[in-house]
Amino acid sequence: MCSNELTEFSIIGAGAVATHMSVVLQAAGMHPLGVYSRTLESAQALGQKLGCPATDRLSDLPGAGMLLLAIKDDALPDVIGRLNATQRESVVVHTAGGVPIDVFRGKAKRFGVIYPLQTFSRQRQVDFSAVPCFIEASDRATLGLIRGVAERLTHTVSELDSAHRAVVHVAGVFANNFANRCFAIAQELLATCGLPPELLLPIIDETAKKVHTMPARQAQTGPALRNDRLVMEKHEQLLTERPDWLEIYRTVSRSIHHDTLS
Amino acid sequence: MCSNELTEFSIIGAGAVATHMSVVLQAAGMHPLGVYSRTLESAQALGQKLGCPATDRLSDLPGAGMLLLAIKDDALPDVIGRLNATQRESVVVHTAGGVPIDVFRGKAKRFGVIYPLQTFSRQRQVDFSAVPCFIEASDRATLGLIRGVAERLTHTVSELDSAHRAVVHVAGVFANNFANRCFAIAQELLATCGLPPELLLPIIDETAKKVHTMPARQAQTGPALRNDRLVMEKHEQLLTERPDWLEIYRTVSRSIHHDTLS
Repeated sequence: MCSNELTEFSIIGAGAVATHMSVVLQAAGMHPLGVYSRTLESAQALGQKLGCPATDRLSDLPGAGMLLLAIKDDALPDVIGRLNATQRESVVVHTAGGVPIDVFRGKAKRFGVIYPLQTFSRQRQVDFSAVPCFIEASDRATLGLIRGVAERLTHTVSELDSAHRAVVHVAGVFANNFANRCFAIAQELLATCGLPPELLLPIIDETAKKVHTMPARQAQTGPALRNDRLVMEKHEQLLTERPDWLEIYRTVSRSIHHDTLS
Repeated sequence: MCSNELTEFSIIGAGAVATHMSVVLQAAGMHPLGVYSRTLESAQALGQKLGCPATDRLSDLPGAGMLLLAIKDDALPDVIGRLNATQRESVVVHTAGGVPIDVFRGKAKRFGVIYPLQTFSRQRQVDFSAVPCFIEASDRATLGLIRGVAERLTHTVSELDSAHRAVVHVAGVFANNFANRCFAIAQELLATCGLPPELLLPIIDETAKKVHTMPARQAQTGPALRNDRLVMEKHEQLLTERPDWLEIYRTVSRSIHHDTLS
């Protein structure tokens, strides 16, 4: 292994993030040494895809240039605590937006984070080269190594500390989880009229496209922006049977109106 | 004029909806006779685009096969009340999701609604042929005439009564206004980290694309879906300075979690 570049990696996790990242890293010339997952079946599925050994025994996973942990946030401390001596010699990297780099402190020598701001599902291809990745590292030399890996994944790499990464993570929740919930409620409202969810795709697409040409704040329209109380009261009456939808209607409308005053 | 087809129209309003609809109708072979807007300048801008007379005096607007009202919801009753005898002979049509067809009752003989489920801005082109339009009419013959007009606009025409149209209108508020507000908050969160809003475009695009392949409810991910209280509490702490964002965080998260229980 060249001392100023990571060329080998092992993967902990076999979910959507682990799969997408390791496939792209391999395609970009890095060599996968092994996959560990709690479930042997998942480990084997990814191992087969990468053509490398798979295991459900953490201690069997080869130490490597980089040890990539792409697992649930709350599983990280336990798994990091169970790394063996060889594994701890690797550059140990997690991918979680909301977990501070300190999770590695005292458990590894060279460590860091590569956080991709994207939503991944196993069944969907994503163009990783367009996904912004935020990196952080234990020290300058390791940061250089991690940057080298991140630049194999994407064109957009930014250094960001744990506190700011947590804020970006919340931003991702609004942009993806919460926008998707709005889409889901809209689709269920259509269903109550006997209408198919596809009818919403043009307005959903246009909503997403619009923010390519102007800030979302400037793209805002609707009764809440105009503080059109008459229309909003009619809407609220239509939502009385779904208190959680009504509550969203009120809080989001208030926030939109509040924003026009600031 | 052929008796079973509307070939001429006048427009009341000169905003984004009026502009997009009348330009498409003209391109589809209908003949614009005139534009009225409260503001002469706006009327003239659209009149110039269509090559037809423009006025800010409602009584000067020629009666036509169809009189298309694309103005704010709350302006409709007043303008409809001020139509002259010739104008009342037209098939009078509004474009508002939230206004019942009854707004025309006693004020015109043949009337109806063409409601396009889309967000329009003057500065953006929209492919109208993909926009779902919901139609309603005073009587069967007029419905046929209005359907003929709507089919010049789009491939997707559905008949829908006023009560259901109001529900679709609320769905549009969730899919566009509220999703956009989520995007705006996400962009402002990035700004607090000194990061540009463009970094959110890949996740926003993927969020919209995903609902092309599965129902939004099935595409849902995130801490609220998993009811991951630890992550959510961290997120809430990051939002304490913006009570309206915090309130949205809580209500939308509750709704996502609530939905997993139903």
